[in-house]
Amino acid sequence: MAKDPKSKNITWSGGEVDHAARVQRNGHKAAILWFTGLSGSGKSTMARSVEKELFLRRCHTYILDGDNVRFGLNRDLGFSPEDRTENIRRIGEVANLLMDAGSICLTAFISPYRADRQGSRDMAPEGAFIEVFTKCSLEECERRDPKGLYKKARAGEISEFTGISAPYEEPLKPEIVLETDKHSVEECVQQVVDYLFENGFLAVNGT
Amino acid sequence: MAKDPKSKNITWSGGEVDHAARVQRNGHKAAILWFTGLSGSGKSTMARSVEKELFLRRCHTYILDGDNVRFGLNRDLGFSPEDRTENIRRIGEVANLLMDAGSICLTAFISPYRADRQGSRDMAPEGAFIEVFTKCSLEECERRDPKGLYKKARAGEISEFTGISAPYEEPLKPEIVLETDKHSVEECVQQVVDYLFENGFLAVNGT
Repeated sequence: MAKDPKSKNITWSGGEVDHAARVQRNGHKAAILWFTGLSGSGKSTMARSVEKELFLRRCHTYILDGDNVRFGLNRDLGFSPEDRTENIRRIGEVANLLMDAGSICLTAFISPYRADRQGSRDMAPEGAFIEVFTKCSLEECERRDPKGLYKKARAGEISEFTGISAPYEEPLKPEIVLETDKHSVEECVQQVVDYLFENGFLAVNGT
Repeated sequence: MAKDPKSKNITWSGGEVDHAARVQRNGHKAAILWFTGLSGSGKSTMARSVEKELFLRRCHTYILDGDNVRFGLNRDLGFSPEDRTENIRRIGEVANLLMDAGSICLTAFISPYRADRQGSRDMAPEGAFIEVFTKCSLEECERRDPKGLYKKARAGEISEFTGISAPYEEPLKPEIVLETDKHSVEECVQQVVDYLFENGFLAVNGT
């Protein structure tokens, strides 16, 4: 990859336009950055901040989150355990398509069940699935409460709310743990970028 | 777009990484090329050939077809009318995500129902959905029968087979009609590329 700077990647042989051709063209490897954590733990903030940093570095990126999935592809799904599982399954499949298309796809969903996240990991090629745990105490998440959801959940206005009335199963072996109640956004972004460099996703000679 | 050659597109302001930022970076507009037509009419052949030409022109492209959708995202769906509709709905949503991510997304599905195709068109931003009708007589499709499916359908081994035992509703106002039984693959590819240039999807000064 480092031998394939953007300005010189004109070596495509003209064969099938496949994943390898896209990666060579893009100058970075594709990946799925799967953010998981409690509501308010910083998934969306971190995904957006990491995306911005990667885009500045000329990577191809795309975020899947509630805004573009819950009201589109998964508009037929609710919040029952089965629907949550199907929700995550579809997100995993779409993340995989975006990854196959050459993007670093960032997903920002609570995705509370270990088995569901494992299912998404299993869909992806070896090494392409990067689980990013936005670790933050429930107390701090509830203090932040950016959408006022904890307040509603405590008042009984929302049922099956993760962390209050529904379980969150912490990752056992996430590739990256971002302690968002201990480090700044900038520090956490750097941690993700460092991981991507150290694991060969980004070219060292790249911009 | 023409004022934004790839080598100089460093003008991103650093704001949100949105669709406009991606289009500027890529140097071409995003779109959905929605191929529709009978089995054997040339949807996949045309999609692959158009993708190759666009990739050579440095466009970001991705094909959704049975191979990466029917066995993944839509593995839970069969071929009943309702499942066909849900199949196309999800494909429309995913095509829209890929388009939003900056790609020229090519879809290659029979998509026999007008209402379903209209549904996918309605999801996309104005002008981004390009219906490409691979027009070919049933006789010629059956003569080609690349997968031996017509033979099986005639023998009653496949039920609800489009064109034989299930309807195909021809597009009324497709943006592009490729007469694959009258023109060569190369001629049809040129027709699509011409459409994209004439409608401002590709930059005239681009490579």
